[in-house]
Amino acid sequence: MADPSILNRKLKMGMVGGGRDAFIGDVHRKAARLDGKIEFVAGALSSTPEKARLSGQDLWLDPDRIYGTYQEMIEKEAKLPVGERIDFVSIVTPNHVHFPVAKAFLEAGFHVVCDKPMTFNLDEALQLKKVVEKSGKIFALTHNYTGYPMAKQARYMVTNGLLGKINKVVVEYPQEWLLTRREVEGMKQAEWRTDPKRSGAAGCMGDIGSHCENLVHYITDLEIEELCADLTTFVSGRQLDDDGNVLLRFKGGAKGVLHASQICTGDENNLNIRVWGTKGGLQWRQEHPNYLYVYHPDTPVQIYRRGHDYLCDAAQRATRIPWGHPEAFIEAFANIYMNATDTLRAVEAGKTPTALELDFPTVDDGVRGMAFVETVVLSNQSQEKWTKMVI
Amino acid sequence: MADPSILNRKLKMGMVGGGRDAFIGDVHRKAARLDGKIEFVAGALSSTPEKARLSGQDLWLDPDRIYGTYQEMIEKEAKLPVGERIDFVSIVTPNHVHFPVAKAFLEAGFHVVCDKPMTFNLDEALQLKKVVEKSGKIFALTHNYTGYPMAKQARYMVTNGLLGKINKVVVEYPQEWLLTRREVEGMKQAEWRTDPKRSGAAGCMGDIGSHCENLVHYITDLEIEELCADLTTFVSGRQLDDDGNVLLRFKGGAKGVLHASQICTGDENNLNIRVWGTKGGLQWRQEHPNYLYVYHPDTPVQIYRRGHDYLCDAAQRATRIPWGHPEAFIEAFANIYMNATDTLRAVEAGKTPTALELDFPTVDDGVRGMAFVETVVLSNQSQEKWTKMVI
Amino acid sequence: MADPSILNRKLKMGMVGGGRDAFIGDVHRKAARLDGKIEFVAGALSSTPEKARLSGQDLWLDPDRIYGTYQEMIEKEAKLPVGERIDFVSIVTPNHVHFPVAKAFLEAGFHVVCDKPMTFNLDEALQLKKVVEKSGKIFALTHNYTGYPMAKQARYMVTNGLLGKINKVVVEYPQEWLLTRREVEGMKQAEWRTDPKRSGAAGCMGDIGSHCENLVHYITDLEIEELCADLTTFVSGRQLDDDGNVLLRFKGGAKGVLHASQICTGDENNLNIRVWGTKGGLQWRQEHPNYLYVYHPDTPVQIYRRGHDYLCDAAQRATRIPWGHPEAFIEAFANIYMNATDTLRAVEAGKTPTALELDFPTVDDGVRGMAFVETVVLSNQSQEKWTKMVI
Amino acid sequence: MADPSILNRKLKMGMVGGGRDAFIGDVHRKAARLDGKIEFVAGALSSTPEKARLSGQDLWLDPDRIYGTYQEMIEKEAKLPVGERIDFVSIVTPNHVHFPVAKAFLEAGFHVVCDKPMTFNLDEALQLKKVVEKSGKIFALTHNYTGYPMAKQARYMVTNGLLGKINKVVVEYPQEWLLTRREVEGMKQAEWRTDPKRSGAAGCMGDIGSHCENLVHYITDLEIEELCADLTTFVSGRQLDDDGNVLLRFKGGAKGVLHASQICTGDENNLNIRVWGTKGGLQWRQEHPNYLYVYHPDTPVQIYRRGHDYLCDAAQRATRIPWGHPEAFIEAFANIYMNATDTLRAVEAGKTPTALELDFPTVDDGVRGMAFVETVVLSNQSQEKWTKMVI
Repeated sequence: MADPSILNRKLKMGMVGGGRDAFIGDVHRKAARLDGKIEFVAGALSSTPEKARLSGQDLWLDPDRIYGTYQEMIEKEAKLPVGERIDFVSIVTPNHVHFPVAKAFLEAGFHVVCDKPMTFNLDEALQLKKVVEKSGKIFALTHNYTGYPMAKQARYMVTNGLLGKINKVVVEYPQEWLLTRREVEGMKQAEWRTDPKRSGAAGCMGDIGSHCENLVHYITDLEIEELCADLTTFVSGRQLDDDGNVLLRFKGGAKGVLHASQICTGDENNLNIRVWGTKGGLQWRQEHPNYLYVYHPDTPVQIYRRGHDYLCDAAQRATRIPWGHPEAFIEAFANIYMNATDTLRAVEAGKTPTALELDFPTVDDGVRGMAFVETVVLSNQSQEKWTKMVI
Repeated sequence: MADPSILNRKLKMGMVGGGRDAFIGDVHRKAARLDGKIEFVAGALSSTPEKARLSGQDLWLDPDRIYGTYQEMIEKEAKLPVGERIDFVSIVTPNHVHFPVAKAFLEAGFHVVCDKPMTFNLDEALQLKKVVEKSGKIFALTHNYTGYPMAKQARYMVTNGLLGKINKVVVEYPQEWLLTRREVEGMKQAEWRTDPKRSGAAGCMGDIGSHCENLVHYITDLEIEELCADLTTFVSGRQLDDDGNVLLRFKGGAKGVLHASQICTGDENNLNIRVWGTKGGLQWRQEHPNYLYVYHPDTPVQIYRRGHDYLCDAAQRATRIPWGHPEAFIEAFANIYMNATDTLRAVEAGKTPTALELDFPTVDDGVRGMAFVETVVLSNQSQEKWTKMVI
Repeated sequence: MADPSILNRKLKMGMVGGGRDAFIGDVHRKAARLDGKIEFVAGALSSTPEKARLSGQDLWLDPDRIYGTYQEMIEKEAKLPVGERIDFVSIVTPNHVHFPVAKAFLEAGFHVVCDKPMTFNLDEALQLKKVVEKSGKIFALTHNYTGYPMAKQARYMVTNGLLGKINKVVVEYPQEWLLTRREVEGMKQAEWRTDPKRSGAAGCMGDIGSHCENLVHYITDLEIEELCADLTTFVSGRQLDDDGNVLLRFKGGAKGVLHASQICTGDENNLNIRVWGTKGGLQWRQEHPNYLYVYHPDTPVQIYRRGHDYLCDAAQRATRIPWGHPEAFIEAFANIYMNATDTLRAVEAGKTPTALELDFPTVDDGVRGMAFVETVVLSNQSQEKWTKMVI
Repeated sequence: MADPSILNRKLKMGMVGGGRDAFIGDVHRKAARLDGKIEFVAGALSSTPEKARLSGQDLWLDPDRIYGTYQEMIEKEAKLPVGERIDFVSIVTPNHVHFPVAKAFLEAGFHVVCDKPMTFNLDEALQLKKVVEKSGKIFALTHNYTGYPMAKQARYMVTNGLLGKINKVVVEYPQEWLLTRREVEGMKQAEWRTDPKRSGAAGCMGDIGSHCENLVHYITDLEIEELCADLTTFVSGRQLDDDGNVLLRFKGGAKGVLHASQICTGDENNLNIRVWGTKGGLQWRQEHPNYLYVYHPDTPVQIYRRGHDYLCDAAQRATRIPWGHPEAFIEAFANIYMNATDTLRAVEAGKTPTALELDFPTVDDGVRGMAFVETVVLSNQSQEKWTKMVI
């Protein structure tokens, strides 16, 4: 069944969601396209067939491969021969649709790339984990910030003990974009993200708090033992939290602070993380992603810069152009696609993926992320100081 | 009793504490000296008479005014005629000595400048407030960071509503300096600050957490209603907390995060504050004090810079040299002295101090600060999520 | 002859140069690919047929469209029907090959995208201008830094008088990469760029000094009247300049400084520009491209940020993803392709390109750039203080 | 004649200039006062006796030591006993008065601290050098930027070869303050600085270009061999240059660029320097003085920070308070006073000053600075490309 030819041809990508008015779907397409090794060939791009059709035309898809529903897409693509049919699907719908679509594609034998948060709730996440394991297919979750080279360098340094034992982590994700009630001003993004029926139990915490949790875990391997959360809905009439502050206690004794917000006037997409250990500290900011600040006692501050030979293999592999020619968000996103599809190719070709290829978020990240979101919501409702992670 | 001549002569300053091996006493002396309107003439500079004497000699004090104890200083200075005797005393001892010394000088009719935290505990703070009020003397507390011009500009903008209703505040004070157990390496500063008998119920939170609380209140006028604290002693063998993370709930609905630490490898003195309101946000960093970042929706970021005519009166008054010639820590400290002693002069001269002159931390800041420290310690020991401010 | 169908299909791109060991060819391919509207279908990727073939295989080109020479490519592509044959060629060879290849493709009726500097010398540049004009085809020169949204915003502000009359410009491009003699260490890039037979009369000044000149002209519309240059070859044995400092005098009285270098230890790709006028100033740095600093007297500094509605149309059009999700080098490069190919489509469809579409560097930029390089070389050899621009 | 008692008492400082409306005199007084080892006791503070008297009263000087002229001050102070009379004088008048005042005080046996540029022209500078040498007195020139600790660290690193052989230097000093014609708006500072009768042959180049030259020499020990200058007066009606761009050629082959301006909208006091050598580079910015950026090939960028043990002795000596409590302009200025007066004390006490004490600008810096200014003016008038340094 191994098919080495997959190593020497473009992969074919389908997409569910990402039609007119959507945001993240286009990022996925650009990221997938960047390296010239993936072509976007089929889509069920919207929840209504007519909008799906128009969206497919916008993108110059072959009319035969513009589908009205994801079910139709599965059915018809499955009939195409390997090499012509899609090799994997990217799911970029609102959250509540992730699970059924992912499940259906996996069970039909397709690999899956899925946007985050992984599912509507933890229960779905746990189910999906079983589906993935049973399917034997690749499931990649686009916690895209872990695709940045300097996040990889940070992970390398922390997990190899270069900062000593980690004592403290502060991770932040302040944004401004929901400072006013955009969900009633016709902004599709804002509509479903603030709707508990489509977004899940949390708003801000599900959308970007989950990125914080993921980034902490990626860089440090630390696991949250218990937490204390205070969520707020600052904008009147909104149904979900638009702000949250969380105290963290990690297994092993490290402490942390996580705060995220959608009402921080002036903040664009200010995800950042600081990690302090007994031998060193580091800081990384998503908006200035090519630089990693590293601190050791009694020595000058060090700024690690993307593209240099002194970086770890994972960081070098995740870099496309030389130092000083800045790389940014799309490249980081593309690195998730690169590693996931390199793994996919390896698996299909009957090879064992390398550790470098396997460096992308998986269903386990998704389960942990959903557990984090549910624990935060529980804690927010509790009068107890500490709430144990629910998984 | 009004003495207008005080408007046209240097004030005479005495000092308790600040001898050999001390740190902050020298900063007080430099700050007091900067503008040429205060001269340092008398001291009881150490807790042992011999060290006090040597310390006085180091500083070229008149031998007649080098005192072995603060009691001796009060007794002898009180006998000198006005204009020759000290006009006020600066108290720069370890925390546990602040209260008795301040009380004694106030009751003897001297004005007082006192280092922070104000007292050993809240009970002393409340007593001191009564002493101050009864004395009619000036009591200034050197929460020096409020002396920075751009902190004053921040206060001006927030309290005048230029950022709208404040939703969220994040204040941080990470430091590295107690990452190792310096208190057993002969470092005097570290010794008493980590000793619960001299420092009080909290270590990190008393020393620098209290600065955070003070800065938030200064800039926003917000009052903490309840909080949730997680304190840690990361360095083995240490008796007091060297790290703390606190969730804040302010009266009126604003939320906040406060974290401070003495084990954050690489951080020097990284006090910083962010305030987000419905119409704007701001950020100020102590280590880059001449710049205030201000954000409003749909407009470019603004960087307010020290020394410009567009700044508020309080910020302009707190500036000595033109834009681009940076000012820093000592000047901010000097602004506390400037405003406190201008108030002192006004009072002694029978004039009413102006609002600009009255812009310095007082015994009320000290009471609130001690209440904050005690509440944080209580919360840390509690299993309840929220602990009300004890005052 | 107008072909409106070109508005609704992917353009087909060929490439000359850009094979194994090349650098910029891959950037061109990624940039062209990003928006999903251009597909790379044919190439003569190297100067030797065998390497050209292997390079084409690396990139999964159709074997029928891997050509051994650019002449073969022209001949065979010209025979394919429109819609199947390449719509334009990208020339990414060393400099000395630009002219003959561009000339041949233009004369064969193909549109051309060409890397910079445009030609080997000014004479070729002037010839090429005639060829372009005669051909009626689109010729785009990839002075890619003008593709950055904030460079466009800078141009908008300066050329609309928002900074008043421009007095002074400082433009810099320090790099480190040729600090050692990489040209003898087997680095292809360094080999040809330091070889006067392939690079032209100038090394550093041709490669990156020309970017400086182009950026100044793009942002300000200023024209150099005369200049005074001091070029240096710091690395022993090197044949061309690796450093240059130039005083500029612009028509109308503005003054300037331009310096570029390949031996500035620690500098990556530090292109930056500052423009000062009677009403305001600005600063932009290529390595932090999403931010434009704007200064006006008596007001706070302003940081314009990419992605906001307050930016000019050209800057907004050149943006793909929301604020705070950083964009960088490849996106800027892609903007040159976007505008050039949108213009190409308009022309082929019989429409008039808009001003926004026409916003890309053309043969006129190339002529001016080559004149600049030749003038710099002349000045460097002269004992006269000022050398007039040769065109 | 040696007087060891001078080691244990405050020095007495007189001042010429620095009265009402002056700027730099107050900075000198604050700087001198900061460490509590110098007291300001006498002044001839203005060119008119009445204004001198009022200025002295403003500063609470003893009426007996408020002098109407500097000649009177010399005469009367000289009659006072040592220990009571001034130990040195600070000259903070407009430039044209520096020479006669300095000469008179030196010849009367007083040490001198003098503001820069040292004299009205090079001829005076050469004369003054002879006067200083003949007098045996200390002459310190307040090129204050060399007082910053991190400038000292930069000097240490460059002169000890840590950057290898220096290839290139870029030094800049853009300011905005003379963008409009403040000299006719009643601003005293602007009046005399733009008046060739009081300022000298150059305006911007004399005032701040000379700081650039001094900083380059301090940090690198490089000597200018020849230069090419282009000076401009952008503001109509102004008599002296308000902008200048200069190409530099140093002895030994290094190249440089120096530009300074008083019309750079938005720049406050943006003195900065970059030095690139074969083994490393560095950058220092006056407005962020506590940080020194250091670059070496193939390693992360290093940020050296003030106050750390890893800094050179000169940098540590020039630091008063711990890391992270920022120091700034006044402290740097105070370091010139500290080193000059420590040298003065050593000399008077019959001791040999240490190298660390001797670290302040002297009459030789003044001579070299005036030669630089005259060479720049000559070059600006010349049609020759290169003008040799006149000394």
